[in-house]
Amino acid sequence: MRLLKNTWYVAAWSKEIGTDFFTRTLLDEPFLFYRKADGTPVALVDRCPHRFAPLSLGKRVGDNVECGYHGLQFDCSGRCTKNPHGDGRIPPAAKVRSLPAIDRHGLLWIWPGDESRADVNLIPNFGHLESPGLKTIGAQMLQLAHYELVVDNLMDLSHVNYLHAPYQQVDDFLQAKHDVVQEGNTLESRRTVWSTRAPQSFRPFLSDPDAPVEYWLNIRWHAAGCCELETGVVPVGEPREKGLIRIGSHIVTPESETRTRYFYASSRNYRLDDPEADEETSRWQQIGFHEQDKPMIEAVQSRMGDSDLLSKRPILLATDAASIRARRLLASMIDDETAATQSASPAYA
Amino acid sequence: MRLLKNTWYVAAWSKEIGTDFFTRTLLDEPFLFYRKADGTPVALVDRCPHRFAPLSLGKRVGDNVECGYHGLQFDCSGRCTKNPHGDGRIPPAAKVRSLPAIDRHGLLWIWPGDESRADVNLIPNFGHLESPGLKTIGAQMLQLAHYELVVDNLMDLSHVNYLHAPYQQVDDFLQAKHDVVQEGNTLESRRTVWSTRAPQSFRPFLSDPDAPVEYWLNIRWHAAGCCELETGVVPVGEPREKGLIRIGSHIVTPESETRTRYFYASSRNYRLDDPEADEETSRWQQIGFHEQDKPMIEAVQSRMGDSDLLSKRPILLATDAASIRARRLLASMIDDETAATQSASPAYA
Amino acid sequence: MRLLKNTWYVAAWSKEIGTDFFTRTLLDEPFLFYRKADGTPVALVDRCPHRFAPLSLGKRVGDNVECGYHGLQFDCSGRCTKNPHGDGRIPPAAKVRSLPAIDRHGLLWIWPGDESRADVNLIPNFGHLESPGLKTIGAQMLQLAHYELVVDNLMDLSHVNYLHAPYQQVDDFLQAKHDVVQEGNTLESRRTVWSTRAPQSFRPFLSDPDAPVEYWLNIRWHAAGCCELETGVVPVGEPREKGLIRIGSHIVTPESETRTRYFYASSRNYRLDDPEADEETSRWQQIGFHEQDKPMIEAVQSRMGDSDLLSKRPILLATDAASIRARRLLASMIDDETAATQSASPAYA
Repeated sequence: MRLLKNTWYVAAWSKEIGTDFFTRTLLDEPFLFYRKADGTPVALVDRCPHRFAPLSLGKRVGDNVECGYHGLQFDCSGRCTKNPHGDGRIPPAAKVRSLPAIDRHGLLWIWPGDESRADVNLIPNFGHLESPGLKTIGAQMLQLAHYELVVDNLMDLSHVNYLHAPYQQVDDFLQAKHDVVQEGNTLESRRTVWSTRAPQSFRPFLSDPDAPVEYWLNIRWHAAGCCELETGVVPVGEPREKGLIRIGSHIVTPESETRTRYFYASSRNYRLDDPEADEETSRWQQIGFHEQDKPMIEAVQSRMGDSDLLSKRPILLATDAASIRARRLLASMIDDETAATQSASPAYA
Repeated sequence: MRLLKNTWYVAAWSKEIGTDFFTRTLLDEPFLFYRKADGTPVALVDRCPHRFAPLSLGKRVGDNVECGYHGLQFDCSGRCTKNPHGDGRIPPAAKVRSLPAIDRHGLLWIWPGDESRADVNLIPNFGHLESPGLKTIGAQMLQLAHYELVVDNLMDLSHVNYLHAPYQQVDDFLQAKHDVVQEGNTLESRRTVWSTRAPQSFRPFLSDPDAPVEYWLNIRWHAAGCCELETGVVPVGEPREKGLIRIGSHIVTPESETRTRYFYASSRNYRLDDPEADEETSRWQQIGFHEQDKPMIEAVQSRMGDSDLLSKRPILLATDAASIRARRLLASMIDDETAATQSASPAYA
Repeated sequence: MRLLKNTWYVAAWSKEIGTDFFTRTLLDEPFLFYRKADGTPVALVDRCPHRFAPLSLGKRVGDNVECGYHGLQFDCSGRCTKNPHGDGRIPPAAKVRSLPAIDRHGLLWIWPGDESRADVNLIPNFGHLESPGLKTIGAQMLQLAHYELVVDNLMDLSHVNYLHAPYQQVDDFLQAKHDVVQEGNTLESRRTVWSTRAPQSFRPFLSDPDAPVEYWLNIRWHAAGCCELETGVVPVGEPREKGLIRIGSHIVTPESETRTRYFYASSRNYRLDDPEADEETSRWQQIGFHEQDKPMIEAVQSRMGDSDLLSKRPILLATDAASIRARRLLASMIDDETAATQSASPAYA
């Protein structure tokens, strides 16, 4: 599938990966993940170069992997370290692809592109996930849809007034001030309602749920699929820092053209030690993401078949501005990358 | 798929459609059906032109439909009546396709072709379904086969002597007088056995089940998939009007190349108020259509793969006359329609 | 699919076929098998030439088959013997393909190629399956993989040290003397360990399980998919005839590109009347073939998609010698057959 290569993708929550083998298909490749004895994460393509057996059907030998079919061993860099057959010579092609993999902000990130460019400073800042001033509740799920449809869903949050009504519905939200701002390769959609009724999702945590509030909803996209959503309410006239704020992490990694691994979390700045508030968040994530977003996004995928969205000429509304710009920006980044790769390679006839 | 467009297809039994949303894929399109407050049926393509969400995941607002994803509203003609976003301007392309839909004879008919030609007088006469002099028992089912295979099954009723033996078997039936008569675009296959033993399906309702009867079985096909089957027995020498007669309605509408919605009913002229006779009919429809026809037709489809029947060069028997003529007549009607459409359209390079 | 035609394939264990209809898809064709009243096996393509109904949905009429849809009858050679319709004339094309079928060694063999060349003497000798000096335990199963992947698994038995460890593991096996010998169109891989510890699968049956033994494992392949495996242990210095020997029968017949019917048996020369040894064999076949080989082979198929093994450029190890030679020999036999068929046919433009 068409993918941006020189970028970090989330493969898993860090806590999903331990010393046991863990497999997940991402970016159209089957991967094997595990941690070395010292905790360093390992990301290998889960396929032996001998007979294409999944290495995950084999076993660990120290920090190395032994194929369960005919016993070749590979180290964490994918180099073959043992051939138990015949004279034991190791064929030069006996290599497994290994990807740069790093834990950051509680997530395991992998880099599918040019390894020499895998700069950890390019990982988007999701530090809020580990901030001591916030309480974070999150998980992951599968969406049977192209990842850009999931990004569209995030970058056009007007859908909360319909798909997530009444829980997340906000009066006057659709006519609110709406800015779409690009900074380098990130894109932010900002909406503010200066005075409205707090949405149901905030009301239990406000001292006066009926007092008018300023409501804001900002979402920032980093290519290819990392979105950071800030939503808050504050009594009208007060500074936003005094408000109830939730930072949402919404990160998608394509598994294939029509499957997307979706990592989500909500980090709130209030009631940090309140198990009921934790439970409320988990319940909403279950309802909102699994029972409302997922069926809708998958139905859209189903109605589109294997067509690309823009090729089907959707009508475009004001609310599509951010999602369409993100699609175009990503497409141009992939085009640039493809062109650079081609010019860097020798030209074959 | 290749389809006759300018014709009426049955979408549902009228009673299947109420004020709630009802969805069915027909003619390779997903449809949303419901009734307006005044009972008028509505047939819309079940796909929002904005992001291709199924409209059926939204809700009614009066007689209109509101998309459940981003809130566009459409009236029963498919015209967008509300855009809740930005300045609320409605893009000219914001339309949903609506099909002419009408209740007739207890069935809901839709017209996928040129709307200006959707003449209700072109609906085949299935008035027997609502005749007070007949008792009708019917339902519908799915056949995982191309609709022409289901029509073949109906237009070659010699199969009753094998697939539906012994219940519908009739001695001497395969050697009976057999006429195939075309009138305009309808085709009728007529078979008569002048003197035979009544088939088991009629015997319980005859005063002398063992007396020789005249038996007849006529089936008339209207393109694309409407068949009316008359079968009866009468003591030899008596006029047919004095006999036991059943009018079968067998109407197929393609869902896709390999899925067919099959509407069926049996209308009898005897024991109109006899619940046991009703039950007998339901039982036979279950056995004959669901347990005998369906596995056979679906096995044939499976053996044919995605080939067209005639391209596989079946051997042709005398009994195939009507079904093959129906296939050829339908093919020429579709050819004519395609040619007419092309000559009516401006020629693009 | 690409197949050797002029060869015998196993369709079933003989005891699987009785007087009732038995169906199995083999060589990309659906087949109907049954036995005539005199016990002779019949192999017909399971598809009526009239409307492509499976004949297996019909019934026997004596030794003949009556189609369950419209009643055509066929004899065991596939000739149409009755057309119940119209004047009863039988169209010349009303034929069903019948394959030469013969019971030999407890297996039913079919020949999909030129019938005039179907010489029973070309059936590989699996006489050990019925030898009174051996006790045989066997069954069959489905592998969701190309049949050559199953042959590869058999022709490279080094996998027993990994996939079937510890039960079949043999110390020093991978460095053992290994010969690959071709005789005509058969290929044999022979491995011997002159002195080792008996593998767990033999130990319960040895008087001194810890005494060093000579261990051997020879497997002979006959195109397209018949393998005979001899494995044994004998105290060092004794002749092999005095050892514990098992003859494995491993015969694969393709159902389609990615489905393989796999017939297996183990014939031992010890404890012929010991139900516990029988049970031990059944248990091992369940574990080894169903729970170890099958998931691995199917995972390899899944990792390969619909690519051919060699086109994916696997790295080749010493242990691949026999399996790769078998693939090349089979490919050249198919090429030869194709060339011969083409030169024997008139050349059309």
